[in-house]
Amino acid sequence: MKLEEIIKDIKPLDETAMKAARARQDTLTKPRGSLGRLEELSIQLAGMKADPFPSVERKAVIVMAADHGVAHEGVSAYPSDVTAQMVLNFVRGGAAINVLAHQARARVTVVDIGVEADFEPMPGLVRRKVLCGTRNMVQGPALTREEAQQALQVGADVLQEEAAHGLDLVATGDMGIGNTTPSSAITAIMTGLPVARVVGRGTGIDDEGLERKIKVIEQSLAVNQPDPGEALDVLHKVGGLEIAGLAGVMIAAASRRIPIVVDGFISTASAMIAVGLAPGVREYLISSHQSVEIGHQAMLKHLGLKPLLDLNLRLGEGTGSALAFHLIEASTRILREMATFEEAGVSDKES
Amino acid sequence: MKLEEIIKDIKPLDETAMKAARARQDTLTKPRGSLGRLEELSIQLAGMKADPFPSVERKAVIVMAADHGVAHEGVSAYPSDVTAQMVLNFVRGGAAINVLAHQARARVTVVDIGVEADFEPMPGLVRRKVLCGTRNMVQGPALTREEAQQALQVGADVLQEEAAHGLDLVATGDMGIGNTTPSSAITAIMTGLPVARVVGRGTGIDDEGLERKIKVIEQSLAVNQPDPGEALDVLHKVGGLEIAGLAGVMIAAASRRIPIVVDGFISTASAMIAVGLAPGVREYLISSHQSVEIGHQAMLKHLGLKPLLDLNLRLGEGTGSALAFHLIEASTRILREMATFEEAGVSDKES
Repeated sequence: MKLEEIIKDIKPLDETAMKAARARQDTLTKPRGSLGRLEELSIQLAGMKADPFPSVERKAVIVMAADHGVAHEGVSAYPSDVTAQMVLNFVRGGAAINVLAHQARARVTVVDIGVEADFEPMPGLVRRKVLCGTRNMVQGPALTREEAQQALQVGADVLQEEAAHGLDLVATGDMGIGNTTPSSAITAIMTGLPVARVVGRGTGIDDEGLERKIKVIEQSLAVNQPDPGEALDVLHKVGGLEIAGLAGVMIAAASRRIPIVVDGFISTASAMIAVGLAPGVREYLISSHQSVEIGHQAMLKHLGLKPLLDLNLRLGEGTGSALAFHLIEASTRILREMATFEEAGVSDKES
Repeated sequence: MKLEEIIKDIKPLDETAMKAARARQDTLTKPRGSLGRLEELSIQLAGMKADPFPSVERKAVIVMAADHGVAHEGVSAYPSDVTAQMVLNFVRGGAAINVLAHQARARVTVVDIGVEADFEPMPGLVRRKVLCGTRNMVQGPALTREEAQQALQVGADVLQEEAAHGLDLVATGDMGIGNTTPSSAITAIMTGLPVARVVGRGTGIDDEGLERKIKVIEQSLAVNQPDPGEALDVLHKVGGLEIAGLAGVMIAAASRRIPIVVDGFISTASAMIAVGLAPGVREYLISSHQSVEIGHQAMLKHLGLKPLLDLNLRLGEGTGSALAFHLIEASTRILREMATFEEAGVSDKES
């Protein structure tokens, strides 16, 4: 299904299911509201899934991997080779996201959407390379408009394939050496904040590297002149393949009423693009955690999201999302499994 | 084993195990430190358990229940009957803590240490009533010194029985209508802050109730004159049976190198008492969450603890602890299950 059609399918949250979930929460054996954000979350999930007793049993983390020409400008602490090496680590189950997803009983789907290396076909790797690495945005657009659209479509297709296997909750994850640079660029453009205010140390660059990173982004904005009001223009000029792919995942998930657990800095950049292309996506987003990256707060504010966790994470891969899965599942279990005042014979406040 | 002997058994964190865990973290396929608090937590757990690969497989929540004479002063939104009703709800598995502990694959042990109701023997309920309800602290000491010591010993005994079934991680939970009042009193005394600064709405009292609650606490402090420097004096004069019991649990857990996951406001009051009686306990405490109760921040500051979660919870029962179990388990799995740079053939930053 084409992206334009998918976007048209996105519906608002289901008010009837939300009302029923809220009413249910108020009958359970606890002071009303005492489970705070878990209660709110359960009601939000009911609205997303149009189900007063939403289930999040079947979970997947979709990890999109791609390289970035801009990494050659010295904006990352790690060499570009690491992207491909980590893809193999994901497929073999040795990375942090594998460990955390396994704990949360979630599948991990790894997608090569633009890694600068050739992979043989292998189980556990979805090969959908749009381009052998995103181009260097300092020298011109990172992608053509068509390539960006193609990458969005790859994301939507991957989500639809995952949904065919049964999917109640999806998380986004990223791998791409250099990808905090395009994510910072997107943030600066879409929030209107100065570049220096939204650029952090990524995997761990030093002061000199940080200054270089700021200059590189400023230069790429000057070269490309992206239009803040047009998300596709921003995406293709200073974005990246995995960022586009994850935006496509989000759009397709929202159209199927599948709640989206947004990971950290890169995934939230994707969310800004997705919401820019399809504003209805916003209501289907759950922010998993507050990243260490300084620009992340501005992104979340722009999207009106409040993260569930704040654990000083800055890894990506979907690791924050996998941790948030437990809290999201908890919120739905409360709704389904707790006894009511009446069932338990417990006196209510008003009685 | 008597409490005085148990206290002597508490040892500092094991530096060798911590060093080994830290070294291990630095070889895993992620930028160093990128898992933030999960990494710190894994190292702390290694120190507590004197094991560079700590396991938290066997988990229990110990819920201590008791009533409070001070509840008759109109300081709670719920009638005292609810304490006994909720004990039955715990035993039958219908409460929030049952749902959340089940999700985290943790046992729930419910202890009647001072509920104002008689329970028949029943599976799942540990009957160790010290007194039929804590006395009204406005009229004099809430407990005698001996009753407080007895309740501490009950907690220590319950922990030792739990440990005999195999226990890697323990969480504290409370049930007792009116128990934010003694907890606030303990906080005011031990932090030296004015009563009004540390008193919140508990299960949901209105403005008038809040004013009454502040006056009741001020009055009980004036009547009892507890000595801030002597934890047992504070505990017996303005504490409560479940608060004492949980402090006993913490002391015994620390002596056995079992990490303690501290729930919210009431459990943290217990932690202040436990640390007052046995300063070595402090290093074995993990704060699960930031409660809505305004006094909780002052308690955590006093103890030097930083909570893992902040979800606007104010339920107690151990619910925040059960949610934190997932994060604690995640930290240990990272240490045990992730591939190293060498194993995965991933280029490290320095190479």
